[in-house]
Amino acid sequence: MIIVKIGGGAGINLQGIIQDLAQIREKFIIVHGANALRDKLAEDLGQPKKVVTSVSGYSSVYSDERLIDQMMMAYAGARNKRIVELCQQNGINAVGLCGLDGKSIQGVRNKGIRVYREGKLKILRDYSGKPESVNRGLLDLLLDHGYVPVLTVPIIDEQNTAINTENDDVVRVLQKTLRAHTVINLIEAPGFLENKEDETSLIRRIPVVELERREQQVDGRMKRKMLAVRKLFEVGASRVIIADGRGEHPVTDALSGKGTVIE
Amino acid sequence: MIIVKIGGGAGINLQGIIQDLAQIREKFIIVHGANALRDKLAEDLGQPKKVVTSVSGYSSVYSDERLIDQMMMAYAGARNKRIVELCQQNGINAVGLCGLDGKSIQGVRNKGIRVYREGKLKILRDYSGKPESVNRGLLDLLLDHGYVPVLTVPIIDEQNTAINTENDDVVRVLQKTLRAHTVINLIEAPGFLENKEDETSLIRRIPVVELERREQQVDGRMKRKMLAVRKLFEVGASRVIIADGRGEHPVTDALSGKGTVIE
Repeated sequence: MIIVKIGGGAGINLQGIIQDLAQIREKFIIVHGANALRDKLAEDLGQPKKVVTSVSGYSSVYSDERLIDQMMMAYAGARNKRIVELCQQNGINAVGLCGLDGKSIQGVRNKGIRVYREGKLKILRDYSGKPESVNRGLLDLLLDHGYVPVLTVPIIDEQNTAINTENDDVVRVLQKTLRAHTVINLIEAPGFLENKEDETSLIRRIPVVELERREQQVDGRMKRKMLAVRKLFEVGASRVIIADGRGEHPVTDALSGKGTVIE
Repeated sequence: MIIVKIGGGAGINLQGIIQDLAQIREKFIIVHGANALRDKLAEDLGQPKKVVTSVSGYSSVYSDERLIDQMMMAYAGARNKRIVELCQQNGINAVGLCGLDGKSIQGVRNKGIRVYREGKLKILRDYSGKPESVNRGLLDLLLDHGYVPVLTVPIIDEQNTAINTENDDVVRVLQKTLRAHTVINLIEAPGFLENKEDETSLIRRIPVVELERREQQVDGRMKRKMLAVRKLFEVGASRVIIADGRGEHPVTDALSGKGTVIE
């Protein structure tokens, strides 16, 4: 079993990725993002993301009902169905699901963010949370009958409400259940870079024991990504490959050792 | 087996419909539209529908790639996933699928519309077509394991491309395969009206033999709808109920004989 996470950047070569996947002779599952599409949709609709800052100074996207609608449109709608279409065109019998479908990805809603509003401390609750489990029965049912699940957000919370979450966390929960031997993470960079401004500074191998140190080296999205990678090894991954999703053969290249291989 | 078609109008009471469906003690499948949402999305995006007129004077929506994206966002995205969410909140383990997913609804793409462009006869081809078959294996797999398929457009054509089609035609192809005893069609009207301007002019019973005459009586969408109903009886339906999707209990009311019952 392989888990393939496809980033949601505009530069990702979906066609190349799906063509490569059509050559794979073992079971795999796709998890994908759609952040570029969501951002463009939000911009075209004149509905920019709301960002809130907690009392502890931590900023995060405020996932209101409108943002969940946008996610349903961009992630579970256009991006998911275009990936499924590409899969079908390449002989992969894909079934696109968000976490609500058959409760495929279940999570727990965040308790709220502590913010100051007009001088008062308030708890601001939004539709976001953390994935906790997957519906293995449904995924196995599909996999055992030759279908390839193509998963994305939103997921479903303990009250059966749609919530936003990080796709990296979805991959972790999937890995916890499915115990894939390899997780491929396709991003808009050649892999983990020594210097994020320099695409030639690719680090080709990272032993698992060095992950924590590497995590300290970076910030922002990459820091979160490296933390997510470290957690994958806590739930049984034996190999994680962070590789370029922009090339002609992103998956073949990743599996042949291009990108950053963490073992 | 019951097939429930939920219209895509803004006045449809989704909550009431799903609450009613949660009480049904036999297998059912949902097919839904999203035209109000799609029209609003197109308007908000400043991307109005293109309408083309054929040489024979017949007007139709031109389904270009952008329109398919909008359908993926509105039908397969926001509307489908909000219906799935409501189902989950009412104890129905729904799985939302468009026709691309597992090739659940397969069709044939239209050959093109003959139009005049700058004085010349041209064939204008778009992404539209007619459904021909459903993937019964996938639907049965889900139904037999307690999942309720929630189906919508786009569907998949013979080249594995996403195409637009009429949901009424999707219902017909489903009926041909699944042989439901009852098809419920929930719309934004009390049923079939003698006078479309007068909601009190509901016709409560229409024998199947009278369908063709009733079809002559109306025009536009309702004419197409009545033709679609007639075709349902050609593929084994024993009862079709056209009922109001706006009330408090749309499905319970329909099954208790409110609306137009065609037998």
